[in-house]
Amino acid sequence: MRTTLEIMKCAKESCTLLKTLDTETKNKALLLMADSLVEATDEILKANALDVEASRGRVSDVMLDRLSLNEKRIEAMADGMREVAKLPDPVGRVLSRVERPNGIVIEKTAVALGVVAIIYESRPNVTSDAASLAFKSSNTVILRSGKEAYRSAYAIVSALQRGLEKAGLPKYLIQLIEDTTRASANELMTGVGYIDLLIPRGGKGLIQACVDNAKVPCIETGTGICHIYVEKTADFDMALNIIENAKTSRPSVCNAEEVLLVDEAIANEFLPLVKKRLVDERDNPVELRCDERAYDVIGCTKATDEDFDTEFLDYILAVGVVDGVKSAVEHISRHSTHHSEAIITSDTACAEYFTSTVDSAAVYVNASTRFTDGGEFGLGCEMGISTQKLHARGPMGLEELTCYKYIIRGNGQTR
Amino acid sequence: MRTTLEIMKCAKESCTLLKTLDTETKNKALLLMADSLVEATDEILKANALDVEASRGRVSDVMLDRLSLNEKRIEAMADGMREVAKLPDPVGRVLSRVERPNGIVIEKTAVALGVVAIIYESRPNVTSDAASLAFKSSNTVILRSGKEAYRSAYAIVSALQRGLEKAGLPKYLIQLIEDTTRASANELMTGVGYIDLLIPRGGKGLIQACVDNAKVPCIETGTGICHIYVEKTADFDMALNIIENAKTSRPSVCNAEEVLLVDEAIANEFLPLVKKRLVDERDNPVELRCDERAYDVIGCTKATDEDFDTEFLDYILAVGVVDGVKSAVEHISRHSTHHSEAIITSDTACAEYFTSTVDSAAVYVNASTRFTDGGEFGLGCEMGISTQKLHARGPMGLEELTCYKYIIRGNGQTR
Repeated sequence: MRTTLEIMKCAKESCTLLKTLDTETKNKALLLMADSLVEATDEILKANALDVEASRGRVSDVMLDRLSLNEKRIEAMADGMREVAKLPDPVGRVLSRVERPNGIVIEKTAVALGVVAIIYESRPNVTSDAASLAFKSSNTVILRSGKEAYRSAYAIVSALQRGLEKAGLPKYLIQLIEDTTRASANELMTGVGYIDLLIPRGGKGLIQACVDNAKVPCIETGTGICHIYVEKTADFDMALNIIENAKTSRPSVCNAEEVLLVDEAIANEFLPLVKKRLVDERDNPVELRCDERAYDVIGCTKATDEDFDTEFLDYILAVGVVDGVKSAVEHISRHSTHHSEAIITSDTACAEYFTSTVDSAAVYVNASTRFTDGGEFGLGCEMGISTQKLHARGPMGLEELTCYKYIIRGNGQTR
Repeated sequence: MRTTLEIMKCAKESCTLLKTLDTETKNKALLLMADSLVEATDEILKANALDVEASRGRVSDVMLDRLSLNEKRIEAMADGMREVAKLPDPVGRVLSRVERPNGIVIEKTAVALGVVAIIYESRPNVTSDAASLAFKSSNTVILRSGKEAYRSAYAIVSALQRGLEKAGLPKYLIQLIEDTTRASANELMTGVGYIDLLIPRGGKGLIQACVDNAKVPCIETGTGICHIYVEKTADFDMALNIIENAKTSRPSVCNAEEVLLVDEAIANEFLPLVKKRLVDERDNPVELRCDERAYDVIGCTKATDEDFDTEFLDYILAVGVVDGVKSAVEHISRHSTHHSEAIITSDTACAEYFTSTVDSAAVYVNASTRFTDGGEFGLGCEMGISTQKLHARGPMGLEELTCYKYIIRGNGQTR
C-alpha cells in the first residue's frame, strides 16, 4: 500500500509538470480519460457490485442507490468529463493588467492552486467529477473516497490513470488515497506544505472534523439551513409555489428550505394557506413546527428552539412569525448557515434591504432557494457549495479551483 | 474594561448597519475621522510619549522610531485616510451577471466580509490605515495593537470614534481590544461566529501562533525568503543593479532579496562581479554566504543548509549555483515562502517557464522583488502582503477585504 504521505509528496512533485500543460493537451487527456472510463465498464461494475454487496442491509435504500453504478451511470460520468473538456480553461486568464509609470507591467493572472484534496463519501461519480475539474484547472488531485465506495473509486481512478498514460502523462496527476481509515483523513487535514486546498464534501461530522483539525487551507461545504421570508407585500400564490418547491422538490439536499418566516401583518391570512398547501393538500404532508405566534394561528407541532437551528433534510419545516424585514434579517443572521435565503416581496426597498444585509452565499428575491447549484448557475459543474466567505462562496466551479499570482515584467527596473 | 468577547459581539451586531451605508456616507465619515485625528494631535502625542518612554532602552532604535509619532506623522495618517476616501468603493461591484433561460438573473456581487480583526505590533499608523481600509470596504474592524503602542492606539481610535459620531454613526464600528495580554489574541483567533477574517501582521511568532491556533478564517502575511535567479542569458549589468537594489535598498522588509541563484554556465564569470558590487565596492558590504559551488569561485562565507531557509532581513545574502532554470525552480519550490521571486534573463522561453512554474505571489522577469507592495502595484494602499493562496495573494488592498455573494432576482421561478 502507498502511504498517504507518499501520495501527498508525489502530488506536490507533479504540480510543476501540470502547470506547463496547455489547454489543448489537457482537453485531449480529458477525452482519453472519458474513453478509458467507458472501456473499463466491466471492471468498474464488478468492483461496484462488491461495494454494494458489502453495504446492503447496513445503509438506507437511498444510500444504496447513491452507491450503485450501472452502464448508463458510467456513460454519464464519461459525458461529464467530456463536458469539462469543453469548458473554458480557468488557468492563464489575465484578471487585471496595469503598466506602472516606471514601465513595469503587472498582470494578475489566474493560476492553479497546486494540490487539491477532496474527502468525500459514497457517491462514485464524485471521483470522476472531482478528478476532471481539478485536472482541467491544472491541479493535481488527491481523492479520498469513503470506505464503502473504495473498490468502485479504485477501479474508476485506475481507468482515469490509464487515460492519462495514453495521453503521455504520468498517472500520478490523479491519485486515490489507499488507506480508508480515519488516519488518512487526518493526514490530509494536517498535510501542511503538501495540500493547497482541502475540500471536505460530506456530512456535518466530516465538516466539523475539518474545522477542528485542519491545518491546511480548507473550504467548508454544504450545510444549509435555508430560510424563506414572506414579506407583507408578497404575491401569495407566488409565495406558496416557491415555499412548496423549496421544501418538497428534494428535501434531502442542502438548498432545500428548512425555515419559513412570515410577516406578522399577513400571518393570520397567509399561514392557513401554507397549512392547506403543505399539509392538507399533499399526499406526503410536511410537518410544520410552529413558533408560538404561528402556533396561535394554525396549530400543528409546537417548535422547540432547536428546530430553528436544524437542517431537517426531510418533510419538516420550522415556521415563525416576524415583525417585518428587519426582524427577519435578524432572525436569519442568528440562525442561518450562510447558504441560501429568499425573500418573497413586491416592495423594492424591502428586497434591497434583504439582499444587502443577509449574509449568505445566495440571496434570492422571488425565486426558490433550490437554484443554488453549479449547473443552475451556469457554471457547468461544481465541486461543492461553499458556505464560507474567504476565496469561494456558493457553488464552486473551475474558477474557484484557481488562485492568482502577479507576473511582473520589466527591463531592469529597481526601486 | 470591555472584554474581548463584548467587543466581538458588538462588532458582529454592527455589521448590518455598515452594510446599508452608501459610498458617499462612508467617504464623508472618513474625512470627518481624518479631521478628528488631526484635532486630537496633542492628546495622541501625549499618549505616544508615554509609550515611547516605556519602551526606551528596551527596544532597538529602529523599533523606537517606528513607535514614535509627531505632528507630521499624524498629518500623514490623516492624509492616508483622505486618500482612502478617494478610492473606488470595493463593495457593490457586480463581478458577473447572467440571465438564465428560466428568467432568473444572477448577479455575483462584491460585499463586505463582515468583521475584520487585525493583530499588529508597534506601528501606530497601522491603527488608522487598517481602520480606514476596513471601514471603506464596509467591514466593522477590531484592532489589537501591541502592548507597547497601546496608549497611542487608544488615543487614535478615540479620535476616529469621535469622527464616526460626528458623521452620525455609532462609534463601535471601529473598536480597539482593551486587553493587551496574549489572552485577547487567542480569543480573536478562536472567535468563531464573530470574526470573518483575522489578519495577523507581525513577526514569525505571531503568524505561527495563528497557523497553530486560529479557528477563524485567517490570512497569513509577511515572511519573505525572496529569490533572484540569474539565468545564463542575463544582461549582467541589469542583473547586478537588480541584485543590489533588492538586497540593499531596505534589507529589513519582506520583499528584500535573501537568496541569489546563479546559472552554472555563467558562475565563473558572474559571481566575481557580484562580489565586487556587493562586497568590495560598498561601504556597508553584504555578507555572501555561498554554497560549495559558489564558494569554489568566490570564497566568502560558507553557507549552511539553514542559510537557504532564513529570512535574514539584514545585509546578508545566501548564494547558490544551479544547473539551469529547471533546477532554479526546484530550489525555489523547496525553499521559498511564496512571496516574491525574480528571474533575470533575455530568453523568453526561460522567462515563461519561470513565471508559470514558480509558485509565489509575485513572480518577476527582469525587475527587483522590492516592487511587491500595495502602493507600487497601484492598489493605493495595503493591509499586508498575503503569502497564502486562498482568497488573497500578494498585496491586500480594498478588494481583498471583500467577498462576494450571489443575488438572484426572479418572478416566482421554481425548480
